[in-house]
Amino acid sequence: MLVIKVGGGAGLDRDAICRDVAELAASGERIVLVHGANAERDALANRMSVPLRTVVSPSGVSSVYTDRAGLDVFLMAYPGLANTKLVAGLRAAGVDAVGLSGVDGGIWRAKAKKDLQVREGARLLLLRGNLTGRVESADVRLLRLLLDHGFLPVLSPPALSFENEIVNVDGDWAAAVLAEALEAEEMVFLFAAPGLLADPDDERSLVPRVGRDRLEDFLGAAGGRMKKKILGARRAFEGGVRTIYWGDGRIASPVAAARAGLGTVIR
Amino acid sequence: MLVIKVGGGAGLDRDAICRDVAELAASGERIVLVHGANAERDALANRMSVPLRTVVSPSGVSSVYTDRAGLDVFLMAYPGLANTKLVAGLRAAGVDAVGLSGVDGGIWRAKAKKDLQVREGARLLLLRGNLTGRVESADVRLLRLLLDHGFLPVLSPPALSFENEIVNVDGDWAAAVLAEALEAEEMVFLFAAPGLLADPDDERSLVPRVGRDRLEDFLGAAGGRMKKKILGARRAFEGGVRTIYWGDGRIASPVAAARAGLGTVIR
Repeated sequence: MLVIKVGGGAGLDRDAICRDVAELAASGERIVLVHGANAERDALANRMSVPLRTVVSPSGVSSVYTDRAGLDVFLMAYPGLANTKLVAGLRAAGVDAVGLSGVDGGIWRAKAKKDLQVREGARLLLLRGNLTGRVESADVRLLRLLLDHGFLPVLSPPALSFENEIVNVDGDWAAAVLAEALEAEEMVFLFAAPGLLADPDDERSLVPRVGRDRLEDFLGAAGGRMKKKILGARRAFEGGVRTIYWGDGRIASPVAAARAGLGTVIR
Repeated sequence: MLVIKVGGGAGLDRDAICRDVAELAASGERIVLVHGANAERDALANRMSVPLRTVVSPSGVSSVYTDRAGLDVFLMAYPGLANTKLVAGLRAAGVDAVGLSGVDGGIWRAKAKKDLQVREGARLLLLRGNLTGRVESADVRLLRLLLDHGFLPVLSPPALSFENEIVNVDGDWAAAVLAEALEAEEMVFLFAAPGLLADPDDERSLVPRVGRDRLEDFLGAAGGRMKKKILGARRAFEGGVRTIYWGDGRIASPVAAARAGLGTVIR
């Protein structure tokens, strides 16, 4: 069982990813694909003049404050544009793909964070009305049913909160919770970098191997998005995942390359 | 087996629809819900200044010419906003709903109409690069699998063309093709009117009963959208559907009211 998380940044070669996933799926491997859509969301928000307020938690993790208009933009980008196009791309590559959001079949349940504590410079603020949450559990009945019948699930945020509200959630964390519920031993994360970088500004500073207990050494230097990937990886290991591959989503055969150890292998 | 098509116009009471569908589903009835999202699409196109060009075919049926930007708006509105919110609403009402587009699992296959012949006044024009199609077949393996395991599928356009391109399709026609493949004997169409109106501008002119072979008498007076509903109904009857209910989606218990004969019953 392999969970692949395709990042939502710009520059990823989605055609190459589809071809690679098609090859793996044809070999009989059970795969769930999780994806983001940050680039689409940011472009849409900009186009629609919906301000996306990036906030920083007291512990230094950045996220986007999500009001009603921001959530709509989120839905347009994730299940709307990105999911439908990825499913169409996979189908064109011969995969019997089925697109889902975490709302469908109750897959992702999240604890809503209505009130968000954020740091602005030296001050701590409380933002209310936030439609973000953190995935706490995954119900994989639907995914197992699809996998057992030869379908490949393609899953993206949002999730449903325990109060049945649609909430924006972090996809890396959500994928980690999912991997635990699916008893996946391997995860592949693809994004717009060669892997974990010792210096976030230098792509030649790839760290090829990291022990899972050393990953947090990189939290300090990591940017907001990479911080989330590190936290997601930690959650995945806690859930029983044994190997995580971080790989470059911009190259040919990106999944195969990551699993061959060309990116960062975390064990 | 019941196929319910919820129109995409403004004014429908989606909460009432969700409650009504939940009651039916709890009674054990097998239901597939198909929906539109015209109102969301038009609002988005307006907001994003994407011109939606409504064109009229030589036979007088209106549709929207769909270029690349128009298709993106379509995806944002249909599988993005409308589908995710409807699924969340159904789940909050206790239904184990799963949202899908016609692309997922190859459900809807459409013949692309790349070149569109349209009438403008007395002239006939040819518009190229159109990303619209007409659904020709439905693959219901995925829907049957979900129904057999207690899930309620919530389906919206787009479809995939035979060339594996995402295409905008008419939902009423697509629902009719689906009903045939599912061997449904009944369909309920909900929209923002009491049913078929003898005078499209007068809601008191409801036609309560129509023989299926008399439906086309109303083609002349019907507006573009109602023309499509009539053509969809004809397609459904050709596929084996025995009774079609057209009902008001703005009232309480709209599905039950339509089936109780409060709208238009077509046999």
